[in-house]
Amino acid sequence: MKLVEMKVNEYLDVLKSDAPAPGGGSASALAAAQGVALVSMVCDLTLGKEKYAEYQDVCGEAKTKASDLYSKLVASIDKDTEAFNLVSAAFKMPKGTDEEKAARSKAIADGTLVATEVPFETMMLCAEGLKVTEMIIGKSNPNAASDLGVAALNLLSGVKGAWLNVLINLPGVKDEAQKEKFLAGKKTIVEAEALAAKIYMEVSAML
Amino acid sequence: MKLVEMKVNEYLDVLKSDAPAPGGGSASALAAAQGVALVSMVCDLTLGKEKYAEYQDVCGEAKTKASDLYSKLVASIDKDTEAFNLVSAAFKMPKGTDEEKAARSKAIADGTLVATEVPFETMMLCAEGLKVTEMIIGKSNPNAASDLGVAALNLLSGVKGAWLNVLINLPGVKDEAQKEKFLAGKKTIVEAEALAAKIYMEVSAML
Repeated sequence: MKLVEMKVNEYLDVLKSDAPAPGGGSASALAAAQGVALVSMVCDLTLGKEKYAEYQDVCGEAKTKASDLYSKLVASIDKDTEAFNLVSAAFKMPKGTDEEKAARSKAIADGTLVATEVPFETMMLCAEGLKVTEMIIGKSNPNAASDLGVAALNLLSGVKGAWLNVLINLPGVKDEAQKEKFLAGKKTIVEAEALAAKIYMEVSAML
Repeated sequence: MKLVEMKVNEYLDVLKSDAPAPGGGSASALAAAQGVALVSMVCDLTLGKEKYAEYQDVCGEAKTKASDLYSKLVASIDKDTEAFNLVSAAFKMPKGTDEEKAARSKAIADGTLVATEVPFETMMLCAEGLKVTEMIIGKSNPNAASDLGVAALNLLSGVKGAWLNVLINLPGVKDEAQKEKFLAGKKTIVEAEALAAKIYMEVSAML
């Protein structure tokens, strides 16, 4: 059963259980999905209101971007657990003969690459989500200011959590070019931290 | 329908929608519930394993604490939205006569107090959750180190997001003693930020 089709309390219970998946990867994607959902909500609480006439264009643009990120981040919740299961299944493959050993090693390497790519993609989606949040700070319904702050917090949690999941899988990535690409994610973290801190400060000042 | 009884994708869709609740308060509680769920999972991945004999006591204690916080934080997801609805309903009360005006003002004040108390409680639960996370850093199954990092990130997002929800409701709290109590929450934020940063650094060093 897909995680997103479970009830919220069932999902949390299985996260809490000793089943190794879902774990921090799916939790990071879910936090981030909450983040862009809140950005979209704040756009909707601004759009179509005469009082906020001057914010209509920016909120319209932000809503389109947030909705796109939302679909992708909701999909990431299950993609992360599926990638984890791929690696687990590979480790359980037989290793009796040389052929079996080779097939197993290849499956582990292939699975690990996917298990690194999925949180890496999540990181990039979160970084975009923070930029969309920033677009509408001070240019949206001020009654929902705290929701934009919570959005930034959840996106920051998502990007940093996904980064930990990239790092834990990285030793299993053999291709040097891929490794380089993933390690460059560090820059995304530094930028996301600065942007989230700026958003949180601006929101706090509005309350 | 309770939020925790919705499917995950239904919950996220209603969070995304322009329905004013659920908003950032419930999202913060859900992030925090993910945090303590992950701590409990890491305890379970350590408990009963001979390899981790020396961590059994601390993980047993941490699991008990995390499970208690988990139940309370899962309950907070709906409590926050219920409190919001209480305030919304109060604002819709009739205000034709002086009696009606007085009853309405009282209902708004009472509702706002609850809507401030709920995220304030969530803050305290998150702060406890971070302490429990710290208890088992380096004293639990190292294969799940990244999950403890994600736990800390979600608890930090929870505590800071709940704080924004305290702040947005605070102007409606008339009792000075209550106001003082809530404002003292600032200290909890400062401590939580320091602890979460320490945990994140220690986890990063293990990867």
